Amino acid sequence: MDTALGINLSFCVKRWVTPELWAPLVRDRLGLGLVQFSFDLVDPMWPDEILDDIAGRLRRVPEEHGIEIHSAFIGLAHYTFNQLLHPDPRVRDYAGSWLARAYRFAAKAGIARVGGPLGAVVSRIDGREPESLSAEDYGDLIARMTRLAGEAEKAGLEELYVEPTPLRREWPWTIAQARKMMEDVAGTPVPWRLCPDWGHATFEPLYGRYRASMEDWLRNLAGHIGMVHIQQTDFQYDRHWDFTEAGAVDPEAARDALLRTGLGDRPVFLEVFYPFERDDRSVLDAVAASVTLLKRAFG
Amino acid sequence: MDTALGINLSFCVKRWVTPELWAPLVRDRLGLGLVQFSFDLVDPMWPDEILDDIAGRLRRVPEEHGIEIHSAFIGLAHYTFNQLLHPDPRVRDYAGSWLARAYRFAAKAGIARVGGPLGAVVSRIDGREPESLSAEDYGDLIARMTRLAGEAEKAGLEELYVEPTPLRREWPWTIAQARKMMEDVAGTPVPWRLCPDWGHATFEPLYGRYRASMEDWLRNLAGHIGMVHIQQTDFQYDRHWDFTEAGAVDPEAARDALLRTGLGDRPVFLEVFYPFERDDRSVLDAVAASVTLLKRAFG
Repeated sequence: MDTALGINLSFCVKRWVTPELWAPLVRDRLGLGLVQFSFDLVDPMWPDEILDDIAGRLRRVPEEHGIEIHSAFIGLAHYTFNQLLHPDPRVRDYAGSWLARAYRFAAKAGIARVGGPLGAVVSRIDGREPESLSAEDYGDLIARMTRLAGEAEKAGLEELYVEPTPLRREWPWTIAQARKMMEDVAGTPVPWRLCPDWGHATFEPLYGRYRASMEDWLRNLAGHIGMVHIQQTDFQYDRHWDFTEAGAVDPEAARDALLRTGLGDRPVFLEVFYPFERDDRSVLDAVAASVTLLKRAFG
Repeated sequence: MDTALGINLSFCVKRWVTPELWAPLVRDRLGLGLVQFSFDLVDPMWPDEILDDIAGRLRRVPEEHGIEIHSAFIGLAHYTFNQLLHPDPRVRDYAGSWLARAYRFAAKAGIARVGGPLGAVVSRIDGREPESLSAEDYGDLIARMTRLAGEAEKAGLEELYVEPTPLRREWPWTIAQARKMMEDVAGTPVPWRLCPDWGHATFEPLYGRYRASMEDWLRNLAGHIGMVHIQQTDFQYDRHWDFTEAGAVDPEAARDALLRTGLGDRPVFLEVFYPFERDDRSVLDAVAASVTLLKRAFG
């Protein structure tokens, strides 16, 4: 069985932002038929008139190029904020409204799944990072996730996704936390699932030099995992390099880990970010070379 | 004469986001009295009730710590979008509304100057990057900047700033373009000025190995420059490293360049970004060490 390989549109940010631009690139240059949309290309807070227009084009243009949009994920812009864990509950409310609008936009565009990181608590002045969320913040987060699943049902989505990130201030950042969160949101009208990332689970400064392991996440959370993000990285930061860079992720070993943990049928999305100032041609060349390398292992 | 050294709050993004958190850090840990606020800490699209509350605290809390907020600049979140040069004029309108709200928020917070990059045109499918904006896009941009100066006057601001970035798709990216733009917006009710960045003017992949020079920008545009961003960088990307990293920017040489070009009285703001996943304590240590190094040259 081949694992389906797709690409997150993070490489298109501020460059190929319309479906008329990215769909031919994905099909003709990369030879892929599966993408994950990024909310860095469309801000759900834009007026309805603009969103409705783009949603209509997202229903039509990718299909004309033989491309399926599997899901839509939070990008860099929204991730910059504390979202659902901001200290001011009114800002958490705003982050909830942002997500509800994201769900409605995705549904209108024919995209059945939405996900991303949930939020971050603020830092302390002394730089000390507590191991866990306060019970109050965690309870509030679960309540908000439950309400958001209701919004997703109203919009007509099929699945919601949490992307765990390797920060003590975000949540969940351990396997045990992720399992507990999945239990605590079990039974919502639209199910919450997990999207682990190869550069998050392996971040050694947080998890330890010999304990950071993507396969542990895959094995222990297999039943909750609906898709996976892949990137090249050195395990020292969450690099989101492409596979032309020298790193520690081996595509064949990554595929074997998915097969060993029974996740060979879950789609794998390459998520790479480039410096804004890097020139377009070298970005296209590097993405294309990466996809060629990944295709030897996937799809 | 000492050049005033300040710090952009980019190092606080998703960490020390409230004035109650960052003001004591800036004063007691960094020993600075001058900051540039970042719109990564507050999104101007948040509801008025939240913005008014934060603006009130920004008027009060930094002053209690002996800190002046010199200006407020666009951060990573808004920079992620094409802003005033998006292909859809309705998205350009939304970016204009965003800025008008940013101006009103800044004025309410007692901040007299607002700035940042203006926007980016989208990329071509073939990866070729034209040298210049179309006459239509450029004319539209100047018209929008002129109208924005009217919004800034209504809000009560003193100055607006353009931060040139080293991308062909953004504008202005050459000294000649910056000069022409300043001429084309001359006489607006609130004046537009320039904030060059030490890591933008020196980006060798765009400007060439021996032609990238911050001093050329300073000398040729001196009359339009009201402040400067400094960062450590290797001239190969717009790194926004702090000064604990090995790079090509020498603080004493930077100060001398400002003095030689008659800009010794313009404030210099350190603008550094850290990976979200880096731990708080090491970020604080690195920012503090950088500021100590920079103080030997400035202020």
